[in-house]
Amino acid sequence: MSEWWNAPCRPLDEAARARAQARQEQLTKPRGALGRLESLALELAAMQGRERPRVERVRIVVFAGDHGVVEEGVSAYPQAVTGQMLRNFVRGGAALSVLARRLEAPLEVIDLGTVEPLQLDGVTHVRLGPGTANFARAAAMSEEQLHQALAAGRASAQRAATAAAQLFIGGEMGIGNTSCASALAAVLLPRSPLLLVGPGTGLDAGGLQRKLQVIQAALALHGAYCHEPLEALRRLGGFEVAALAGAYLGCAQAGVPALVDGFICSVAALCATRLNPDCRAWLVFAHRSAEPGHLAVLDDMGAEPLLDLGLRLGEGSGAALAVPLLQQACALHDEMATFAEAAVSDRPA
Amino acid sequence: MSEWWNAPCRPLDEAARARAQARQEQLTKPRGALGRLESLALELAAMQGRERPRVERVRIVVFAGDHGVVEEGVSAYPQAVTGQMLRNFVRGGAALSVLARRLEAPLEVIDLGTVEPLQLDGVTHVRLGPGTANFARAAAMSEEQLHQALAAGRASAQRAATAAAQLFIGGEMGIGNTSCASALAAVLLPRSPLLLVGPGTGLDAGGLQRKLQVIQAALALHGAYCHEPLEALRRLGGFEVAALAGAYLGCAQAGVPALVDGFICSVAALCATRLNPDCRAWLVFAHRSAEPGHLAVLDDMGAEPLLDLGLRLGEGSGAALAVPLLQQACALHDEMATFAEAAVSDRPA
Repeated sequence: MSEWWNAPCRPLDEAARARAQARQEQLTKPRGALGRLESLALELAAMQGRERPRVERVRIVVFAGDHGVVEEGVSAYPQAVTGQMLRNFVRGGAALSVLARRLEAPLEVIDLGTVEPLQLDGVTHVRLGPGTANFARAAAMSEEQLHQALAAGRASAQRAATAAAQLFIGGEMGIGNTSCASALAAVLLPRSPLLLVGPGTGLDAGGLQRKLQVIQAALALHGAYCHEPLEALRRLGGFEVAALAGAYLGCAQAGVPALVDGFICSVAALCATRLNPDCRAWLVFAHRSAEPGHLAVLDDMGAEPLLDLGLRLGEGSGAALAVPLLQQACALHDEMATFAEAAVSDRPA
Repeated sequence: MSEWWNAPCRPLDEAARARAQARQEQLTKPRGALGRLESLALELAAMQGRERPRVERVRIVVFAGDHGVVEEGVSAYPQAVTGQMLRNFVRGGAALSVLARRLEAPLEVIDLGTVEPLQLDGVTHVRLGPGTANFARAAAMSEEQLHQALAAGRASAQRAATAAAQLFIGGEMGIGNTSCASALAAVLLPRSPLLLVGPGTGLDAGGLQRKLQVIQAALALHGAYCHEPLEALRRLGGFEVAALAGAYLGCAQAGVPALVDGFICSVAALCATRLNPDCRAWLVFAHRSAEPGHLAVLDDMGAEPLLDLGLRLGEGSGAALAVPLLQQACALHDEMATFAEAAVSDRPA
C-alpha cells in the first residue's frame, strides 16, 4: 500500500539516548532512584535527538465529532453537549482549557462534524458530516470521510512540527465515543466487549447493559469485515478517533513525541500502531483511566502510563496533567549535579 | 501527658469543604470524572478553610542526620555522603534542589548531626550529636536528643505557618535511614521485618540479608520496650525521622497541609499519627515508593498516594514531584466553568 501512513516514521536517535544514559549514570542519586522518570528522560532524549531533552513547547489539539450510535441510548449525556463543549473549550472553561493555560500551551480546537452545524470563533471547522452514521446499523464513515479525518489529524501533527513543538497532545470530545472506542478495541485486540465496556461519563447499570448490547450487535454486523485495521476504523470509529490516529502517525513521521491521554486516545493510538507499528516508539502514555477497557489497550501496546488517578474525563486532560512530570524529568536530567561536580562519593562499582 | 504534641490539631473546616463540594458538582465535567483530583481539592479546601484552595506558596525543609547503625554495613553508600549531600542541597545540584527551583519554593536545609561536624553556608546546623548511636547495640537517641529533634521539626512547621505557606514538604537525608525506618515500621505496625526491609539506595542480595539480620537483632534488643511510640522512636529512630514527625505534628497544630514523601517520611508520619492521631487529617501522601515496606505503612494510615513511579530517592523529591498535581487540582477547581456559566447541558438527575 502506498497510503501516507505507510511511509516510514522518523527513527529514534540511539546515539542521543546513549549520551543521555551516560549522563544519567553520573547524577547524584543512586542509579534508578528516579524510577520511571529516568526511562522517560531517555525516551525523550532518543525522540528529540539531544542528550538533554526539553518539554517546554507543548501543542494541544482537541478533535470533536458526534456519533450516530448515540441514538441507541448509549450515553448519560445529551448529544448537544459535544457542540456546547466546543464553545467551552475556546471560552476557556473546560478542564483542558484550564490545564492548557497553566502549561502556556496553545489549544487548537477542531470540529470534525457535530449533529447541528456550528460556526464558532476560535474553532477550526473541518465538517465531515453531521456526526458519523450509527455503527449499530451501518458503517460509521465512508472511505472519503475516514481519509479526511486521518488527514486532518496528520495536518495538526505537521503544524506542531512546523511550530517546533517538543510535545504533542491530542484530545477528544464526542458524546458516545467510549462506545466507539470499546467496539474498536474489541475487534483490534481482539477481546470480548464484556471485558472492555464501561460506564463512560457515568452510565448506570441499565445503561451499561444497553451499551454492551449495542456494541455486541455492531460486532455481529461488522466483525467479519474488520480484519484490516483501516476497515475496522471506518466501520466502528469516529471522526475524532480517526483524526487522533492520523495525528499520532503524523507525529511519528514528523518526529514529534506524542503524549497519549485516556481510553479514547489510547484506542486511536492502537489503530495507529496497527496501521504503522513503528509509530509506537513516538508515543508516551499519560495515565491509566477508570474506564475498564483501558488497561487491556495499554497492555497490548506495552504501555507504562505515568499516572493512575481514576480519571475518566477525556478531552486530553489526563495528558495535560502529566506534562509537569515530563518537564520535571527533563529538569532533573538537565540540572542535577554529577558526582564529580558535587564532590559526592558514588558507591563502589 | 502534657507534651506539646498532645495539644489539639487544628480542626478541618467542614463548611469550606461543603462549599467546595457544591461548587465541584456544578463544574462542566461528569461528576467524579477528575477522580483523585476531586477529593484532593476538597481535602485542601477543608484544610485551608476556603472554597477554592491554592498551593502556590510551598515550603520545603530537608532534615539530615547520620545513623550509628551504618557501622553494621547496612548501606550501599559510604556514610560521608550524608554531609556531602548537604552541600549539594544548598549548591542546587540535588534532585530536590532542582525541583524546588522549578516550584519557586524556598528550600530550608537542617543538619541535625553528621558524623563529622560541618559548617556550611545556607545550612542550619542544629547539631544533636555525631549521628545517632548504633541501634543494633543501644538506643539510637537519648531522651534529650529525641525531644530536641521533635522540637526542631515543630519549629520548621511554625516557620512555615508564619510564612503563610499553603503546603509543607519535609524531606530527609541520612545514609542508613531505610534501616531505621524499617525497624520503626516493624514495631509500630507491627509487622515482620522480612516483609518490610528493602534495598534502600541499592543493596545487593547479600547486603539485604545483612540489613535484615541487623534489624532483627535490634528488634530482639529493643522490641519489649517499644509499646509506646515515643520510646520506639527514641530507640530505633533517627534525628531526621524524629524531626519529620515533629514537623508533621506541628503542621497539623498550626493548620498547614503537609505533603508526605516516600518510605522514611511515611514512617515519620506513622510515628506522628501514633503520638497524636488527629494529625492524620493534615497529611497528603505524594507517592508510593519502590521500597517494599512503604505499602504497608501507607495502608496502615489509609493513605491514597498520588504517584506510583518506582521512585526510591527520598530527599522529599517524590513530594516535590507531586506538587503540580495539587496545583492543577486547585486550578481546575477554581477556573473551570459551571454548567450554567458555559450553557452546557448537565445530564438528567
